Amino acid sequence: MPVSPITLYFDFSSPYAYLASRLIEDIAARHDRGIEWVPMLLGPVFAATGARPLVEQPLKGDYALHDMQRSARYHGVPFRVPQPFPIATHQAARVALALQREQPALATPWIHAVFDAYFTQGRNVADMPVLHALGAELGLSAERIDAFCADAQVKAALRANVERALGAGVCGAPFFVVDDEAFWGVDRLPQLERWLQARF
Amino acid sequence: MPVSPITLYFDFSSPYAYLASRLIEDIAARHDRGIEWVPMLLGPVFAATGARPLVEQPLKGDYALHDMQRSARYHGVPFRVPQPFPIATHQAARVALALQREQPALATPWIHAVFDAYFTQGRNVADMPVLHALGAELGLSAERIDAFCADAQVKAALRANVERALGAGVCGAPFFVVDDEAFWGVDRLPQLERWLQARF
Repeated sequence: MPVSPITLYFDFSSPYAYLASRLIEDIAARHDRGIEWVPMLLGPVFAATGARPLVEQPLKGDYALHDMQRSARYHGVPFRVPQPFPIATHQAARVALALQREQPALATPWIHAVFDAYFTQGRNVADMPVLHALGAELGLSAERIDAFCADAQVKAALRANVERALGAGVCGAPFFVVDDEAFWGVDRLPQLERWLQARF
Repeated sequence: MPVSPITLYFDFSSPYAYLASRLIEDIAARHDRGIEWVPMLLGPVFAATGARPLVEQPLKGDYALHDMQRSARYHGVPFRVPQPFPIATHQAARVALALQREQPALATPWIHAVFDAYFTQGRNVADMPVLHALGAELGLSAERIDAFCADAQVKAALRANVERALGAGVCGAPFFVVDDEAFWGVDRLPQLERWLQARF
């Protein structure tokens, strides 16, 4: 019986999704699962749940800034507090979606490249020149990146991912679904792994 | 050099604080730390952070109901979804505070008794008759419980705990402080324990 992949809903501006992007592949490999990366946008999710961006919330914002850095150290993942934060990530997400459709071998490298640029190199991945530079490292021309971002089908696919996320009950990022079981947060990876082992 | 205790801010209506109450003592014992239990109220914390009770939030509420049950299974802690939820917990908190002052040996047993009544036995610990019954099991008369709840100094002490929590940056429950390092959530206990070991 073929096993389904681990579905990972993410927004490129989520530090915890970045941490998850660095941790999920080892977990998936240990359990012979693939990963379905689903770029989406937290803005509409926050609108649905009534949440605001983490750092704009009194008390929680200060705590979160500290927690994201300590969580990175805890997991041994390089991390730099992004500035500005949060940012618009629809262009980076569109490129990811277009690559998943047209050149799937580059899609996951793109996802890692965007996350790393923003969360380890301090580069603003909302800026097209930054996306052009990241594309160049993968052999993608600036024209191709621009075409992905302007493509009506790609735009529609991103909107569809957001709808899919809301339909799946996604209330933040990272959000995982494994065999219909939902896990929210990088801090739920131990439970996700236990689920893969033993469906406790 | 004497070591400071692990400070645990909690509200009796928080399922995750209940889980923490079942897990923190082993962690503290492993690292020769005491525990300072700080009953407080999430209402004013939510007012400060702009949050609403978990189950009232679209998407998050459904997820949380599922997550709290799975988290209990993950940690091997008995759990029953409380009903009604959330509830007013100021009376149970006042008794805890009064015992901490007047009969400290009973304070932690009271805290566990209230949590267990609500989260494993389905008893509504907002009701005075339930608190009377829990008190009776510890040898406390109903009159004494009532007197604790009506005591102006105890009421003031609970308000002071809430102020202290807000001043300490408490943004939810459970919230831990160890040597000025803050941890929010039962899911941060692994980081808290690493901190006790290695201040990573």
